[in-house]
Amino acid sequence: MKNLPLSKVYQLLEPGPVVLLTTARKGRPNVMTMSWHMMMKFEPPLVACIVSGNDYSFAALRATRECVIAIPASRLASKVVKVGNCSGRDTDKFKAFGLTPMPAQDVKAPLIAECFANLECKVTDTRLVNDYNLFILEVTKAWTDPAQKNPRTIHHQGFGKFAVDGKTIALKSKMR
Amino acid sequence: MKNLPLSKVYQLLEPGPVVLLTTARKGRPNVMTMSWHMMMKFEPPLVACIVSGNDYSFAALRATRECVIAIPASRLASKVVKVGNCSGRDTDKFKAFGLTPMPAQDVKAPLIAECFANLECKVTDTRLVNDYNLFILEVTKAWTDPAQKNPRTIHHQGFGKFAVDGKTIALKSKMR
Repeated sequence: MKNLPLSKVYQLLEPGPVVLLTTARKGRPNVMTMSWHMMMKFEPPLVACIVSGNDYSFAALRATRECVIAIPASRLASKVVKVGNCSGRDTDKFKAFGLTPMPAQDVKAPLIAECFANLECKVTDTRLVNDYNLFILEVTKAWTDPAQKNPRTIHHQGFGKFAVDGKTIALKSKMR
Repeated sequence: MKNLPLSKVYQLLEPGPVVLLTTARKGRPNVMTMSWHMMMKFEPPLVACIVSGNDYSFAALRATRECVIAIPASRLASKVVKVGNCSGRDTDKFKAFGLTPMPAQDVKAPLIAECFANLECKVTDTRLVNDYNLFILEVTKAWTDPAQKNPRTIHHQGFGKFAVDGKTIALKSKMR
């Protein structure tokens, strides 16, 4: 994994890919599937996300205030759905679905070796957790896998239907 | 435009498309390009979005507490970038770029006729506006254009580079 400048993190999340969110509590890592996230600030990168109170990850995220956002390319789509179809309450999802946890640097939550990007995050604002399950995260470290060139991400349209990135278009833009 | 059940709104925004945000203030409509948004709740649909204090739309959104999220298909990409490259301060963007404002039902902000979906929204929570420019919107009415079948959306990767929806995959999922 290669270090990615934090100023480039938005380029990974702004397109709205399905991501995996890892946590670790009492030495036990877990992972969930997540689509409800958005960029909030370029640098330091702030990210908002919704983690439902029904998700087993909710308590770990709230207690440890740490997580990793791991971004899977389309070849991992079936694993991403399997991760979303069960709970860490009764399943070791890393083992069950052949995902490899790797130590992170700033947080105890693991990186996922198979993902093309991994973002280490700390919870920085919990004001809207009680009302909306909305967590605000600061990305403190970002990693990409140089071996995965031009990864295509997946975008959830509901009920397990995903759009995969197709062609890329480049237009003259002042937008960062 | 055909009415879309509010329970299906997440299927439009969860994939993370670039959207247009319209506002209207003192009888003057405006439109901006936006990628920083996420679903927060299925029904009634709640959406979070970031509208920068530098954007001309910010003051209109804060004052009127109303907007429309209009979703463009890929054929509108060049207009979407042009909308993002200038300001409503000095440009009537609807006229400049050939976008057609249409009256909405619940809000004064206009729908955009060329977009395949339009979501009428009211601001319901401004607690995080001062700190992060984060608005929480409730979608009160949703419209789709039946003439635009299987629209492909665009996803911004930074500096005017967009991924267009490619193939669709369907996997057996318990995820809504």
